[in-house]
Amino acid sequence: MSTDTDADARQQLIDLAAEFYDQFERGDVPSMTLPTRTKSNIEYDEASDVWVYGDRTSTRSANSVRGARKLLKAIYTIEFLARQLDEDRSSTLRELYYLSESWDAEEAQFNGQDESNKLVEDLEIVSEVKREDFHMRPEESGATLIGPLELIEQTRRGERQIHCQQDVGEGGYQIPNNPDTIQFTDHDIDFVLCVETGGMRDRLVENGFDTEYNCLIVHLKGQPARATRRVTKRLHDELDLPVLVFTDGDPWSYRIFGSVAYGSIKSAHLSKYLATPEARYVGIRPQDIVEYDLPTDPLADSDVNALESELEDPRFQDEFWTEQIELQLDIDKKAEQQALAANGLDFVTDTYLPERLTDMGVL
Amino acid sequence: MSTDTDADARQQLIDLAAEFYDQFERGDVPSMTLPTRTKSNIEYDEASDVWVYGDRTSTRSANSVRGARKLLKAIYTIEFLARQLDEDRSSTLRELYYLSESWDAEEAQFNGQDESNKLVEDLEIVSEVKREDFHMRPEESGATLIGPLELIEQTRRGERQIHCQQDVGEGGYQIPNNPDTIQFTDHDIDFVLCVETGGMRDRLVENGFDTEYNCLIVHLKGQPARATRRVTKRLHDELDLPVLVFTDGDPWSYRIFGSVAYGSIKSAHLSKYLATPEARYVGIRPQDIVEYDLPTDPLADSDVNALESELEDPRFQDEFWTEQIELQLDIDKKAEQQALAANGLDFVTDTYLPERLTDMGVL
Repeated sequence: MSTDTDADARQQLIDLAAEFYDQFERGDVPSMTLPTRTKSNIEYDEASDVWVYGDRTSTRSANSVRGARKLLKAIYTIEFLARQLDEDRSSTLRELYYLSESWDAEEAQFNGQDESNKLVEDLEIVSEVKREDFHMRPEESGATLIGPLELIEQTRRGERQIHCQQDVGEGGYQIPNNPDTIQFTDHDIDFVLCVETGGMRDRLVENGFDTEYNCLIVHLKGQPARATRRVTKRLHDELDLPVLVFTDGDPWSYRIFGSVAYGSIKSAHLSKYLATPEARYVGIRPQDIVEYDLPTDPLADSDVNALESELEDPRFQDEFWTEQIELQLDIDKKAEQQALAANGLDFVTDTYLPERLTDMGVL
Repeated sequence: MSTDTDADARQQLIDLAAEFYDQFERGDVPSMTLPTRTKSNIEYDEASDVWVYGDRTSTRSANSVRGARKLLKAIYTIEFLARQLDEDRSSTLRELYYLSESWDAEEAQFNGQDESNKLVEDLEIVSEVKREDFHMRPEESGATLIGPLELIEQTRRGERQIHCQQDVGEGGYQIPNNPDTIQFTDHDIDFVLCVETGGMRDRLVENGFDTEYNCLIVHLKGQPARATRRVTKRLHDELDLPVLVFTDGDPWSYRIFGSVAYGSIKSAHLSKYLATPEARYVGIRPQDIVEYDLPTDPLADSDVNALESELEDPRFQDEFWTEQIELQLDIDKKAEQQALAANGLDFVTDTYLPERLTDMGVL
């Protein structure tokens, strides 16, 4: 086993399994208790500014065939994960699903990947160990970093020391699946800028925005992968850096900001690992559409519905968002970040971002 | 202007514009002639094994308002591209669309991105210069490389010398948007393996397949970006390396193989830059589904239709593909590459690939 984290993760799994033994020994029907994972049991925690599970719990018990089968699958999965940690291997969620076909108890095999994915999430919640620490990899890959950051990545091939400007091509440094294998060793970063689209990320890189402003550019690639959100949070927490999120000006992009800043409903149990509540929005505002006279598209019905549901969303309950969302519904328009190019290719780096960041006190 | 390629590209553009002047001078109505870009005018070229345009041409002439407007847009775009090359700048296709909003002649502005994208493709065809050499970037980013390859990338920040195993993290080396900025300087590669999914790419990396077999792993990320196909072709042509394509076993994956090997209908004018006709298929075969008893899904109606259309496709007119596709229609099943995990996480690197590659004479 490679690290203390691995040993801890393995111990948590073994403890879960031991709990089943204890239940058998006491003559109890084995069971596992979890927070209820429905939308109605997810609360916005005002203190920590992120989504968390509420107090309601559900119990999986072996007192029905269905419940017993679920626990059997959990036990097989625990055994697989514990061995994986022992051997310092890793696997994807999809491989776990297929691998179950080789398990001797047919009853323990998964019927679909939804089932195995959900079980891994359940185990994350009960054990309080993240999927990454079970060495489970996602299919989705993390995005890229470019900027004045030096890091060391622990790889299976040894340590790699990489400067995210001097040692990488224009594509930047590719975030590994488990970004906790990275250690930040040195930096000259003034702020972190998370950028939604590849086109805008490339614009900022071409215009040398990262060198001119000592900025670390994180490419979000749309809705960001867990690895990308984790790196962003660690940059904020460990290096004490302001985090700005630069997206399109539409309700889906506000959700991207929301998932970086406040976590998502789907991964509410991981908010403390993944969410950066201090992140601030520097994306296209409905106000910018008006002020900079940006090229726009009209709102679709689905945009209007999404905006209206954001007006009810606790994450967007402040003066800024209420004002902007109401303005957007009023002007009935949305704009992409690349629409700034209507004012020239350098407008975003010479005017828009410097103005916004100065207003926000970042520059 | 940075390179000879840039100067050539710019000259081709100026020549196009000069042709319009000549037409005016001769008292002709200006026009531009292009190969007809419909499916019926695309032919499979047996000699070069790739898709090319046929002999039919269409003429855009200023003898109608609509035609004159198209030529005006072409001229504005040529001017923009020539200036971009002069200044050694670049831009995305999306930026070009937005940027047209700032052009003084309203008639020259694009009505949508489809229009500007298509015009850039037209200019590629008439000028015989690739989009990348106009410094137009795609939104889609290229994928990653890992393996015993040393390269130098010319970036705006200077030259970067990168070894694609020793100088990168587990995420690998990110291919830049224009891979012709890369020079291959040294390598110890025996073959190139292009892999469809991220999960399988990570499996091969974890199992050290690239080091054990001196293999360069190219992540295709589904249907590969132009940059990824270009790098693959250059690896084959310049380093004289066998290229193998490892995908899922379904008709969409056969198309991925087809686009690496034979080019695509959409970019038939670029087949000679992007296609690697010598690439060979090492993806999941219907035969493997039977032989290795892989977990499968039943074929959907759309799969059956796609397979039937592949039976008619000139690219798949050989004994191997006919046999495999007919077998697949017969067993009515498809399988993913990660389904190999049903035989254990190491089956793909210990058994499947070594057996297949030995059969094919690669190992």
